[in-house]
Amino acid sequence: MLYLGVDVGGSHIGVGLVDEHGTILHQDEMVTNPKRGTAAVLDELAQLARRVAEKAGGMDKIQGMGIGLPGVVNVDAGTLVFADNLGWSNVHICSEMNARLGIPIMCGNDANVAALAEAKAGACMGADNAIVLTLGTGLGGGIILGGKIHTGAHFVGGEIGHMVIEVGGRLCNCGTRGCWERYAAATALINAGRQAIEEDPNGAIAKAAGGNPDKVNARIVVDAAKAGDAQALAIWKDYIEYLCIGMVSLVNLLDPQVFVIGGGVSAAGDFLLDAVRTRLHEMLSFRDCPHATVELAKLGNNAGIIGAAMLCVQ
Amino acid sequence: MLYLGVDVGGSHIGVGLVDEHGTILHQDEMVTNPKRGTAAVLDELAQLARRVAEKAGGMDKIQGMGIGLPGVVNVDAGTLVFADNLGWSNVHICSEMNARLGIPIMCGNDANVAALAEAKAGACMGADNAIVLTLGTGLGGGIILGGKIHTGAHFVGGEIGHMVIEVGGRLCNCGTRGCWERYAAATALINAGRQAIEEDPNGAIAKAAGGNPDKVNARIVVDAAKAGDAQALAIWKDYIEYLCIGMVSLVNLLDPQVFVIGGGVSAAGDFLLDAVRTRLHEMLSFRDCPHATVELAKLGNNAGIIGAAMLCVQ
Repeated sequence: MLYLGVDVGGSHIGVGLVDEHGTILHQDEMVTNPKRGTAAVLDELAQLARRVAEKAGGMDKIQGMGIGLPGVVNVDAGTLVFADNLGWSNVHICSEMNARLGIPIMCGNDANVAALAEAKAGACMGADNAIVLTLGTGLGGGIILGGKIHTGAHFVGGEIGHMVIEVGGRLCNCGTRGCWERYAAATALINAGRQAIEEDPNGAIAKAAGGNPDKVNARIVVDAAKAGDAQALAIWKDYIEYLCIGMVSLVNLLDPQVFVIGGGVSAAGDFLLDAVRTRLHEMLSFRDCPHATVELAKLGNNAGIIGAAMLCVQ
Repeated sequence: MLYLGVDVGGSHIGVGLVDEHGTILHQDEMVTNPKRGTAAVLDELAQLARRVAEKAGGMDKIQGMGIGLPGVVNVDAGTLVFADNLGWSNVHICSEMNARLGIPIMCGNDANVAALAEAKAGACMGADNAIVLTLGTGLGGGIILGGKIHTGAHFVGGEIGHMVIEVGGRLCNCGTRGCWERYAAATALINAGRQAIEEDPNGAIAKAAGGNPDKVNARIVVDAAKAGDAQALAIWKDYIEYLCIGMVSLVNLLDPQVFVIGGGVSAAGDFLLDAVRTRLHEMLSFRDCPHATVELAKLGNNAGIIGAAMLCVQ
């Protein structure tokens, strides 16, 4: 069985030819340029999809297309409700693409779809009940329940990063204060690293960033912590604490089989995994009962395309 | 179709004869006295169940029995993993009761089971995706997904009150700091009322409690707020804020069709409902999208028996 997986981003759209196991057999991409309007973008996407499908012998060899979209998606109606970074709203994306390609079209939120990829072909393959945390600019991801993406009754669920962990805390882009993503996204680690340079312009983080706060990234902070720098270790310890607090809440609410951690911070590898596994276990109330395992994501940037294709399989 | 619903508490065990619509046709109860051991308690429970079943013409008229238990329950294995306030652990409750009664036995956590009652026969009847919040001594309730109780992969989920809303905040009985129930259970309202008496021994709350902090209950605080007392209104406003913060997180994560609010605080009726509906709407990020409605629970103390019986129907 062959599918097309489409990952729509603000700058580029990726299209992949994906088999039922989640393997990408071929992929290509185009510039989004969303300002030209949906019709022009979808026309070009249809052309690109046909070219990719040619690698399988044509569109009649394709069982369906799944599309991951950066916004609120009504998966039942097949519409993009709105996407701020595209400037689009109320786009009947599934019927529009079906009219152009004549194959079944499914759609979903991009972060949720990437989570589905890990559940169908990645780090939590086969898990019925999993939570994927993507620690990047924001804290995205998705909740997998019964082997499917959980988006809720009005398609606004699965926004894991917007669970409030500190009433009246740091202001989030969503308008709420204290959202988990303000503390546990890669951005939180980077902000703490910048602060560290101000506090100690001769410290390990400052040196690694050449004294330039704008050059701080998650890797610099992680590497300094791995090397045993006290300032970086304190930042890392705080970061792990905040990350695990949110995971404790998710265990108490949803009790997943497994957490999968992806995004930029997950490049820290075992340094992250060991810290989270240890601290999460210590913090759980029912720590003597079996509880969620923690794994690193496997699919990286391909998760968007693979997960979109998997929408046709789920 | 007729079922037996059993609500096991630390002091009493209630048994009801319940039809498939969740109507209790007859009910009776016994003293738990858990210290005498499980065998003695389950023997007496079997006798009581037979007496209740006689009202239907005998045990052969009963399709099954559901049991709500105050602890961690492995619903697949049919065991009570542990229950602190019974002092019991690893009780094979379903096989034990099946051996005594010869009918199918199901079990579940008592708070979750009460939530199921509201979904099957109460305030959110027919909802596939609902969250029941019981605002009592603690903040209990349950998550209904796909029309069933969600307990998670290791049966420790659905502990809604133990979502952390304030890192490093008030210490909870579970050992974690900042759990939602420390801010949004009836106990939080009562504690604030006691504090108010200290701050103003001549205030409306102090008068209603006869100056005795031990006499403060949720009703006293609510009634003073309803009457427009400034001190009580400030407490109520804070309480609603904390309650709604947690509900915002649950919308962002799970996006239920409906929240159902029960427990002692729900006696405030429309005063509570209006406040929560207004503030929740204001606080939601996607407030212009359709979102969860808020309703009051309907089944009161009978929810435990009804929900237990509904375990056999779900």
